[in-house]
Amino acid sequence: MNAQQSHTPVTVLGLGAMGRAIAGAIHRGGHPTTVWNRSAGRADDLVAQGVTLAPTAAEAVRASPVVVVCLLDDTSVRDTLAALVDPLAGRLVINVTTVTPKRARETAAWAAEHGIEYLDGAIMAIPEMIGLPVASLLYSGSQAAFDTHRGLLELLGGARWFGADAGLASLYDLALLGSMYSMFAGFAYGAALVGSEGVPATEFAELAAPWLTAMTGGLTGHAEYFDSADYTAETQSLDFNKAAVDTIAEAGHDQGIRTEVIAAVQHLIDHQIAAGHGKESFARIIEAIRPPATGGGGREGR
Amino acid sequence: MNAQQSHTPVTVLGLGAMGRAIAGAIHRGGHPTTVWNRSAGRADDLVAQGVTLAPTAAEAVRASPVVVVCLLDDTSVRDTLAALVDPLAGRLVINVTTVTPKRARETAAWAAEHGIEYLDGAIMAIPEMIGLPVASLLYSGSQAAFDTHRGLLELLGGARWFGADAGLASLYDLALLGSMYSMFAGFAYGAALVGSEGVPATEFAELAAPWLTAMTGGLTGHAEYFDSADYTAETQSLDFNKAAVDTIAEAGHDQGIRTEVIAAVQHLIDHQIAAGHGKESFARIIEAIRPPATGGGGREGR
Repeated sequence: MNAQQSHTPVTVLGLGAMGRAIAGAIHRGGHPTTVWNRSAGRADDLVAQGVTLAPTAAEAVRASPVVVVCLLDDTSVRDTLAALVDPLAGRLVINVTTVTPKRARETAAWAAEHGIEYLDGAIMAIPEMIGLPVASLLYSGSQAAFDTHRGLLELLGGARWFGADAGLASLYDLALLGSMYSMFAGFAYGAALVGSEGVPATEFAELAAPWLTAMTGGLTGHAEYFDSADYTAETQSLDFNKAAVDTIAEAGHDQGIRTEVIAAVQHLIDHQIAAGHGKESFARIIEAIRPPATGGGGREGR
Repeated sequence: MNAQQSHTPVTVLGLGAMGRAIAGAIHRGGHPTTVWNRSAGRADDLVAQGVTLAPTAAEAVRASPVVVVCLLDDTSVRDTLAALVDPLAGRLVINVTTVTPKRARETAAWAAEHGIEYLDGAIMAIPEMIGLPVASLLYSGSQAAFDTHRGLLELLGGARWFGADAGLASLYDLALLGSMYSMFAGFAYGAALVGSEGVPATEFAELAAPWLTAMTGGLTGHAEYFDSADYTAETQSLDFNKAAVDTIAEAGHDQGIRTEVIAAVQHLIDHQIAAGHGKESFARIIEAIRPPATGGGGREGR
C-alpha cells in the first residue's frame, strides 16, 4: 500500500473553531480530508493546506468512509444528519458535538436503523489543544469502530473508549465540563471580590491556580463519602462550612458584587442542614443534588 | 537565653479542629502554650502533651503576650473579645477566624481603640495541613507584629503579609475559598451526573482531579480578559459556551438530578448574552458578577 491507501479518507462536517482544528489535525496526519460547513468562508485556511471543500454535505459524505460531525449542538446534528440518510448508509459517523447522553443514544439508535455505524465522542480540550497529548477525547458506542480507527482518533489527542452505550462518553464529558464551568464561575467570583478592592485578576490568578490545584487533592476524599453515603464528619462539619460560605456571600454583598455563584453552594449546604445533617461532612452537599431515590446509606436521613 | 525564654508564650482561644491543630503546632514548636474553649473536654489531648488549659478566657489571655483567636465566626469573636478588653490591653491578637474584610477592619479598629495590637490571619488549609509546608496563611494588619512573630507564624505553614489594611487577608481568603467551594460544588454535580448511571464517584474523581488541574491553566487567560475588560473572543464565544452549559443542565434534568449549581453558571452567561455580548469571550461572565460601576472597558456595553 502507498501512504494514500493506508490512510482512510475522512470527512469533517462543521467548521467552527473545533471542527477546523480537527480537520487540520487529520489532514496533517496524512488522511485525505474533505470538509463542509453550512456557511461558507470558514475553510479557506484548510483549503490552502490541501483539504478539499465539498459544495454540499452529501458530496462531502460521499468522499469518505468516515464522517466526523462537529456542529454547534444536537439540533444542528439532527437537522444535518436527517438530510444525509442515503449517503451515510454503510459509513461510520463519529459525532464529537457536545450532546446529552439521552440524545447520543437516540442518534445511535437512529444510525443503527439506517445502517450507519456510530461512535460518540466528547472532546476534553479547547481547539488549540487538538493534536497535542494534553487533549483528551472520550468515546462510546461501536467498539469495532474505535479499535479500527484508533490511529485516526489519536491524531486528535488521547483516546479512551468507555463502553458500547453511546451515551457514556457524553455522560463523562458533561460531568467533567460541569465541574470545570463551576470552577471557572467560582474563579470569576473570587476575582470580582478582590477586584472590588482594586486587586488585579492576574495577581489573584497567581494564587488561585496553585490553590485550586492543591484543593483537587481533596476530591477523592469527597468521592469516598459520596460512594459510601456515610457522612460521619472526621473534622470540619457542614455547620462549620456553612459559617465559611455565609461569610463569603456576606463579603460579596459588602463589596457590592452579585453572589449567585456562592448562593448555589449555600443552597446545597442549607438543604442538608435543614434535613438535620449539620454535624456531618460537607460532602453531604451531593445529597442535595442526587435524585431522592439514590445515595445508598444517605437515604435514611431524607 | 534558655529555650523557654526565646519562645514567646502563646494563648489559643477556641478549640475546634483548627484551633486544636494550631495549638498543637505552636506547642510542638517550643512555645509555652495555653488554651481555652467555651465548652470543656476539647483540650484533653493537648493537655496530655503539656499544653496548659486555662479555666477562663481572661486567665488564658493573661498567660501570654500573643493571643491567637480561632472561633466559629465573627459573632463568636466579638462576643469573646468584648469581655476581654482589660486583659487584652498591650497584647497582640492574631485573629485567624474566617470573617469578612469589613468585620476584620472593624475588629482592627476596636483593637486600636483599646490598646490591643491586631493581626488578621486567614488559613488556606484544613486542620490536617497545619504545620506542613502545603498550608498557606495570609496575614494583614500590623506589619510590626508580622515581622516580630514570623517564626511563630511559620510554625503553622507558609506566611505572607498582604498589607496594613486588616481586611486584605480575608479578602484574598474569601476569594480563594469561594473559588474552591464552587469547584467542590461543580465536582459534586459531576459526580451526581455520572452516579445517576452507576459510575462510582471515586472513578470520576480519577478523571476530574487531573482535568480540573489542567483547566486551572486557563485561569490566567480569563484574568487577562477580566483586567482588560476587552472580551473580543479569539476562539469559542459566550454563545458557544451557552450551548455547552445548557446541554450540561439538560443532561442533569434528563438524569433526574438537581441543577442549581449549573443554573448559576447559566444565569451569568444568559445575563451577558441578553446584554448583547454573545459573540464575545466566556470570560465576560465576570461582568454579571462585578458591580455595574467597575469593569474598565466593559462599561460601555452596559
